[in-house]
Amino acid sequence: MSLEGRFDAEAGLVYVGGDARQRYHDSRGYGYPISSNEIALSPVEAAHLLYRGDLEAVVDDANGARLDFQSFVAREPGDHFGVRFLVYADLRSRGFYLSPADESWVEDPPTGEADFAVFPRGKGPGDGEIAYALRIIGERTDVSAAELAEGVLAVVDEESEITYFEVNREEPTGDSNPDVALPQGCEADLLADRVVVWDPPLELYERLFYGQPLEGREYDRPTLQCSLLEAAYLAERGAIDLDPATVRERGREVEGDRFERRLAVYTDLRERDVVPKTGYKFGADFRTYAAVDSVAELDHSELLVRVHPADYVFEPRDLALDVRLAHGVRKTMVFALVDDDGDVDWWSLERLTP
Amino acid sequence: MSLEGRFDAEAGLVYVGGDARQRYHDSRGYGYPISSNEIALSPVEAAHLLYRGDLEAVVDDANGARLDFQSFVAREPGDHFGVRFLVYADLRSRGFYLSPADESWVEDPPTGEADFAVFPRGKGPGDGEIAYALRIIGERTDVSAAELAEGVLAVVDEESEITYFEVNREEPTGDSNPDVALPQGCEADLLADRVVVWDPPLELYERLFYGQPLEGREYDRPTLQCSLLEAAYLAERGAIDLDPATVRERGREVEGDRFERRLAVYTDLRERDVVPKTGYKFGADFRTYAAVDSVAELDHSELLVRVHPADYVFEPRDLALDVRLAHGVRKTMVFALVDDDGDVDWWSLERLTP
Repeated sequence: MSLEGRFDAEAGLVYVGGDARQRYHDSRGYGYPISSNEIALSPVEAAHLLYRGDLEAVVDDANGARLDFQSFVAREPGDHFGVRFLVYADLRSRGFYLSPADESWVEDPPTGEADFAVFPRGKGPGDGEIAYALRIIGERTDVSAAELAEGVLAVVDEESEITYFEVNREEPTGDSNPDVALPQGCEADLLADRVVVWDPPLELYERLFYGQPLEGREYDRPTLQCSLLEAAYLAERGAIDLDPATVRERGREVEGDRFERRLAVYTDLRERDVVPKTGYKFGADFRTYAAVDSVAELDHSELLVRVHPADYVFEPRDLALDVRLAHGVRKTMVFALVDDDGDVDWWSLERLTP
Repeated sequence: MSLEGRFDAEAGLVYVGGDARQRYHDSRGYGYPISSNEIALSPVEAAHLLYRGDLEAVVDDANGARLDFQSFVAREPGDHFGVRFLVYADLRSRGFYLSPADESWVEDPPTGEADFAVFPRGKGPGDGEIAYALRIIGERTDVSAAELAEGVLAVVDEESEITYFEVNREEPTGDSNPDVALPQGCEADLLADRVVVWDPPLELYERLFYGQPLEGREYDRPTLQCSLLEAAYLAERGAIDLDPATVRERGREVEGDRFERRLAVYTDLRERDVVPKTGYKFGADFRTYAAVDSVAELDHSELLVRVHPADYVFEPRDLALDVRLAHGVRKTMVFALVDDDGDVDWWSLERLTP
């Protein structure tokens, strides 16, 4: 026998009596109990029970109107209801229970922008365990960097397909620390957009992985082309005979503030014994190598790094592009957020199949 | 015996006498003959001969200074010289000859923004055949859509690595034309960011590939979720009972002018019997299917389409990202440029290994 619910639009809750507590909450994780029989449901939970045919109808307290799935959904025309319903239904169809991130439903609900608490497979709201906090957005909803939180971000695209991203804090670490000192005072020329280092010791490239040798010449003292970032880092440490301020000035001329942010990230990575090289071929700022001992024995790079200011606002479409590309080349997509003091906050995003 | 050149900085030419014509031009494709022995070289060609040690030095007409490779390059601090030199050297090392895109070097040189004419393998400037026009830019040089031309675009990144893109006009064609008429007047609701079509004939999805069925319900009359683009197209043709103007208005509210451009491209593709679906998971506007007869027997999609206004300016980094991603998923990256009248100009970009 199907039950009916009572919709209190003002409270944003649907109440169901009868054996609803046992039938919907205790055994299937919907709503929260308000008495030994009755439960309260969020509109998304109620819509799902209507959709499945488990609730016959919902009666609107205000006017006595009997709402079925179609008319209940039409009452909630905002997109956030639509996208939350789709993700809620998708996760339930995959065998997960989830509850609104609110203390009526769960003790210690996730904070911040979370929409739901998702429970471990086989667990429900009463079991005191949360697998992850879930945030749900449409593909046109921007995400500010400051709102990033560990958990899962579900993006619903315009055709109602869902992509899940696992969001984690990341601390890049490496052990690229060959027993080779930086050379000092190598002759170098600043060109418009790069620096040529004339005849440095081979180790500068071959072990420490700075620059790119000009090909077609004898190789024991290579002619190295360095990016302005590499050159600024090397000049700062006396390795090349250019004034560090001049190189940074040139960097700012060609890239603006972005150069300073990228230099902060480049420096942070080098100090973590991770070697950054340009990520241009992947459309990123850097690709990184965690364990360089010699360029001849280089492993694949592990991370793709995109640098943004700390107050950056992501578009979900760009996130999809970056994460998809990184996944396709078996790297992890990492975002380096740089604040005004040059401090770097690291986040990784990876595709997840729940 | 090495020769020396004479540098006329004002003309931007290096003259070499002796047996230069036979030695450098006739047998190796450098410069153009100005007498039975003497040739004229562009600075890039001269730099390459200096770099290889084939030219001993170049003497500056103005002051008698003797320039070697390092000092000659330092005289040309603009980045365009640097990036052209790198690409020139790379293509020569791959066994190709190329000449400046100028009628002193080649009959019928390529026009527009081309830097060089590249000859077919084994051919040179005197053979009257050009393989492609080559344009060379640094990764920070923007490319306006209006300048796109068939040929090859070489992008030199900040670490002096080169990516080659083959640029072609594209005419998407398909034969997705199942023998099924569009239904008329299906009941539909406009939600914030999408449209629900209630119980349309199964063919609307299953054969014509509009929308996405809501899962978990009986399926002979599916509940279809359509994007606003699909809905605008269907409403215009009477297939759903929504006012086309209202749907387009909603599209403009959520996406601005971009919605109209995307609708122009969506419509153009449907009229070419190509089925566009969202490209969100690839960070693109559409993925396309050229031959849909039934969704149950769908092949992989062939193109990724990004929509831009006709006056768009590309950043090479974004091009790299798009083309790399498309390549990784074995699709062709296509740019649809939409002018103010809604006419669409189609271009493809693909990675090329010369």
